[in-house]
Amino acid sequence: MDTQPIRLPSVAGATRSAGYPTRPPLRRFLTDCHEEFRGDSSGELADYIPELKRANPDHFGIALVTIDGHVYEVGDSAVPFTIQSVSKAFVFALALETVGEERVSATIGVEPSGEAFNSIRLTNDNRPFNPMVNAGAIACSGLIYEVDGKGAFERVRSKLSEFAGRELGVDEAVHASETATGNRNRAIAWLLRNYAVLPDDVDAVLDVYFRQCAILVTARDLAVMAATLANRGINPVTGAQVITPHIVARTLSVMTSSGMYDYAGEWTYRVGIPAKSGVGGGIVAALPSQLGLGTFSPLLDNHFNSVRGLKVCEALSARFDLHMLNRNADVRTSVMADYDVYGISSRRSRQPHEQQILDERHSDIRIVELVGALNFGTIDYVTRRLTSEPPNAPLLIIDFRRVPDITAAGAELLGETLTALGNANVTTILSGLEEASAVWAAIAARTGDPRRLRRFALLDDAIEWAEDQVIYRFGGFTDVKESVHLGEQALLAELDTDEIAAIVKLSTTRHYTAGQRVIAAGAPANSLFFLQSGMVSVKLRSGVRLASLGPGMEFGEMAILERTRSADVFADTPVACLELPLDSFADYRRLHPETALKIMRNLAAILARRLVAANAKVDLLSAY
Amino acid sequence: MDTQPIRLPSVAGATRSAGYPTRPPLRRFLTDCHEEFRGDSSGELADYIPELKRANPDHFGIALVTIDGHVYEVGDSAVPFTIQSVSKAFVFALALETVGEERVSATIGVEPSGEAFNSIRLTNDNRPFNPMVNAGAIACSGLIYEVDGKGAFERVRSKLSEFAGRELGVDEAVHASETATGNRNRAIAWLLRNYAVLPDDVDAVLDVYFRQCAILVTARDLAVMAATLANRGINPVTGAQVITPHIVARTLSVMTSSGMYDYAGEWTYRVGIPAKSGVGGGIVAALPSQLGLGTFSPLLDNHFNSVRGLKVCEALSARFDLHMLNRNADVRTSVMADYDVYGISSRRSRQPHEQQILDERHSDIRIVELVGALNFGTIDYVTRRLTSEPPNAPLLIIDFRRVPDITAAGAELLGETLTALGNANVTTILSGLEEASAVWAAIAARTGDPRRLRRFALLDDAIEWAEDQVIYRFGGFTDVKESVHLGEQALLAELDTDEIAAIVKLSTTRHYTAGQRVIAAGAPANSLFFLQSGMVSVKLRSGVRLASLGPGMEFGEMAILERTRSADVFADTPVACLELPLDSFADYRRLHPETALKIMRNLAAILARRLVAANAKVDLLSAY
Repeated sequence: MDTQPIRLPSVAGATRSAGYPTRPPLRRFLTDCHEEFRGDSSGELADYIPELKRANPDHFGIALVTIDGHVYEVGDSAVPFTIQSVSKAFVFALALETVGEERVSATIGVEPSGEAFNSIRLTNDNRPFNPMVNAGAIACSGLIYEVDGKGAFERVRSKLSEFAGRELGVDEAVHASETATGNRNRAIAWLLRNYAVLPDDVDAVLDVYFRQCAILVTARDLAVMAATLANRGINPVTGAQVITPHIVARTLSVMTSSGMYDYAGEWTYRVGIPAKSGVGGGIVAALPSQLGLGTFSPLLDNHFNSVRGLKVCEALSARFDLHMLNRNADVRTSVMADYDVYGISSRRSRQPHEQQILDERHSDIRIVELVGALNFGTIDYVTRRLTSEPPNAPLLIIDFRRVPDITAAGAELLGETLTALGNANVTTILSGLEEASAVWAAIAARTGDPRRLRRFALLDDAIEWAEDQVIYRFGGFTDVKESVHLGEQALLAELDTDEIAAIVKLSTTRHYTAGQRVIAAGAPANSLFFLQSGMVSVKLRSGVRLASLGPGMEFGEMAILERTRSADVFADTPVACLELPLDSFADYRRLHPETALKIMRNLAAILARRLVAANAKVDLLSAY
Repeated sequence: MDTQPIRLPSVAGATRSAGYPTRPPLRRFLTDCHEEFRGDSSGELADYIPELKRANPDHFGIALVTIDGHVYEVGDSAVPFTIQSVSKAFVFALALETVGEERVSATIGVEPSGEAFNSIRLTNDNRPFNPMVNAGAIACSGLIYEVDGKGAFERVRSKLSEFAGRELGVDEAVHASETATGNRNRAIAWLLRNYAVLPDDVDAVLDVYFRQCAILVTARDLAVMAATLANRGINPVTGAQVITPHIVARTLSVMTSSGMYDYAGEWTYRVGIPAKSGVGGGIVAALPSQLGLGTFSPLLDNHFNSVRGLKVCEALSARFDLHMLNRNADVRTSVMADYDVYGISSRRSRQPHEQQILDERHSDIRIVELVGALNFGTIDYVTRRLTSEPPNAPLLIIDFRRVPDITAAGAELLGETLTALGNANVTTILSGLEEASAVWAAIAARTGDPRRLRRFALLDDAIEWAEDQVIYRFGGFTDVKESVHLGEQALLAELDTDEIAAIVKLSTTRHYTAGQRVIAAGAPANSLFFLQSGMVSVKLRSGVRLASLGPGMEFGEMAILERTRSADVFADTPVACLELPLDSFADYRRLHPETALKIMRNLAAILARRLVAANAKVDLLSAY
């Protein structure tokens, strides 16, 4: 994934001190929320673990982390507290990762229980109702214990640390207090043991569970953990893939149906953001592809949910219409541009007869430029365009440089279409993709005949390759080793034999080996070149190619107008050319103004043609 | 919303007969599903209404409608059947619309009941558990009956018809059968009457309910209805706004928590697409911003869900990873480009001293081009860029031409940011928006000082306006009525007084009134013009402006190279200019080749400058 898709040409040198205000509206909203809800001191501190009674009821922190890893923090967002039941969501994800979905399903259900979180009741087939009640969470810890034994807690702590993006520790006092008083959970655990849901070492499993509940987090930690769920398992701050997207969807599902206890239906209806709360006063809420929210305020309502935390969730959802089922998208914006190469060309300059073939066969090359992350809906739209609007192009270029990601479903649909196109003798060229990119790997793995699929990092290279195919197919292939007569140079068009002979006389023949630099950017521009055999490339210092030229073409001709070389020119192959020094030409010009006028007219005509092509490209690119 | 954002320059004339295959992969997948699952004849026909027993167990239809209104249909997708409980979702939406959220909430809960759909049990406060069980659905019909009385059923039928995009009818035989045998529903209705959930006319309410269950639909109808929910309440086939996005989210919420009866948790966990089934054999499934699915097969499992329909939903979700909580997005792709006007300019050519001001003050104009539908996450990202990376530009252009939609949340965030920018003396210009567009209305309504906010349909016009502000601010404003000396023409640079006098002698002074055409595209190019006072615009036949020119500039100068005029030129104001006929110039050229060479060199230099500007624009536009 390209983490820096935006170029800011002018900002680099600009001062950051003056001008714009510095508070994005979301920060202001969260500050307002904090200001408003801190005044609400309703609710009670949790008392079923004596140590939790010692919390400071005034503490109130909010943190929100976006999908691109930006962190908003307000109030006591750095104050540590014990994670408690919020851990259940993440330990469930870890259980799925550790023992697999089948084993987890056989052990724990996913239906809402309709009872309190610490109910001892099990389903008719003696499983915990779901992993968000204590019985189900203890069963999850048991599954991990079965695999890791004494390493089970460290695995839990380590995974939760990955979610948070920092190493998390344990509040030993709360752990001791919970161990001393957690008799109801002991009863649940032994009942689970009775039905063989838990292994023999019930006390060891309980210790994993008690310890995981005593892990210390901040509101900021919870927000990062939530954002990792919202970002398909990739921690947006550290960039690490913590868990698979599949497990994320399963985890958010149980948070949706059971995360807020017997308030779940109401929560889905009113707030519509998968969430989990804990008696330590924390709430995590994760809205896929949008945000992760973490709140901390230890005063709890009669559902054991944090009073102020709930209010923040409700206000955020209501103000910004964030219900998970309220989504908009227009699949049509996934196609940025769809055109053939009429008036467009790669930066490789062509011989006149080659250019004529390209002009006649412009509809043989179709270019489709995509934009944005590609999912089921957008790729369905794209494949429909590709299959239902046949411009009959045997060469199809699909440009991915603005595509950060493709879902497995998208790659599946696209791969099938490209295979069908290959069978119909269409060669597809994917551009804007590096060899090592995940998008390329996903598509290539799903496309049939690899001979019908090409990849280039740059769209321009893809167009050049496609042009070569068309020229070759229509017999226009030129041997660049063949030397050309100076009369074929566009700059010397309409000069008679004597005039050309005079130019040759003023010039010197030069030879260069492949890779050699012919012209250096920044050097004085005091000559121009006529390429007689071989290929050269005109390049910027950045390595960007401005043009590739072959026999019969001139380069360095801007010296007639400018005093300094604006780009490098390198020989791509062994090259032979004539160099005409401008001071000799100046003398010549004085003696033969009619000839000089022809050359100047030719230069103006060359520039005019290039300007027409450049303007066509601007119009095309601006049209979308 | 722009319904046709894509330009296909070359396809118009292409034949559609040959070349590409014509089956998009999604169609093939649905065909495969149909082929595979039609062999499964497990399950039973519903028997609690005698008439339903007469259904053909072989019938099996699938339809899928995308967000852009494309309809896929396989099998018996046009066979009518009674909608039954599928109606509950849509009638709930109608009840919310008819009597409002508060009234509905007071009457019906939203928690899963944990019991069968025809349970007579109510909540502790004597409300139906949710609108997806019979008790809740009858209560919804009752709410509508209270408002419409005898018109209630017609309101229901009419609203469901809007969802389906066609006029729906009733199966009178099924209605009669249900009326004759629906005693359990009678019991539920009278119990609701006992707790004053229903009004007096219990039989009339029941008739509305029985009739709504007997409405005839096809799998295709259900798919369109589902797609309307998936598309924020806009029927993607008819384009009509059937219901508000807010009500859609609420409806999908209860479908999520209670749509599949006591299978709801499992359904959310495994399939993750809000859905509702009916004993007629229909299922609707709506995945927001992606698709609407409708299936029909009358064989039911022991939860009264269609066996084959469930399999289609499961296969579709699993194969294409469509779980509603599995979403990807990269907010950074919402900003396509972010640059100042360095090297970029509007198509209005400037006087040299004006251009110098623009060259020096290029960072005073910042242009941000957005792409895709804008929601909370993307606009938060955009506002952060605008507020945290100050390039100190007093003029900010935000281009919306690739933005099909903005959510209320997005408009809220953006409006607040633009207000703050206005207070910091930044003028924002929104381009790519028509006066009547919904996006413009949404943003303008939320932005404080209207004097700090401008709107243009075209980005180029926005840039020109911003350039004018900069030029005016720095004292460079030129009175276009002022006549200029011919020596200031770029084409005549470095000519001495005698040479210019000779040119004047060959030329004729011309005057044009505002709006008059000076040059016609396609006409012979046999003269060039020096503009002395006033403004002209160079335009394509399509009306696209290529350039605006002022005093001291030449036009029609390409006549030196080309024989035909390539564009129209119109006088924007009263205009005075000198016309130089090319045949006179040709004679002159022979007599004064040195002067002609200077003019040709000037032309080449003008073209070279334009080429540099065009290439800069190509590079900038290609970079994103």
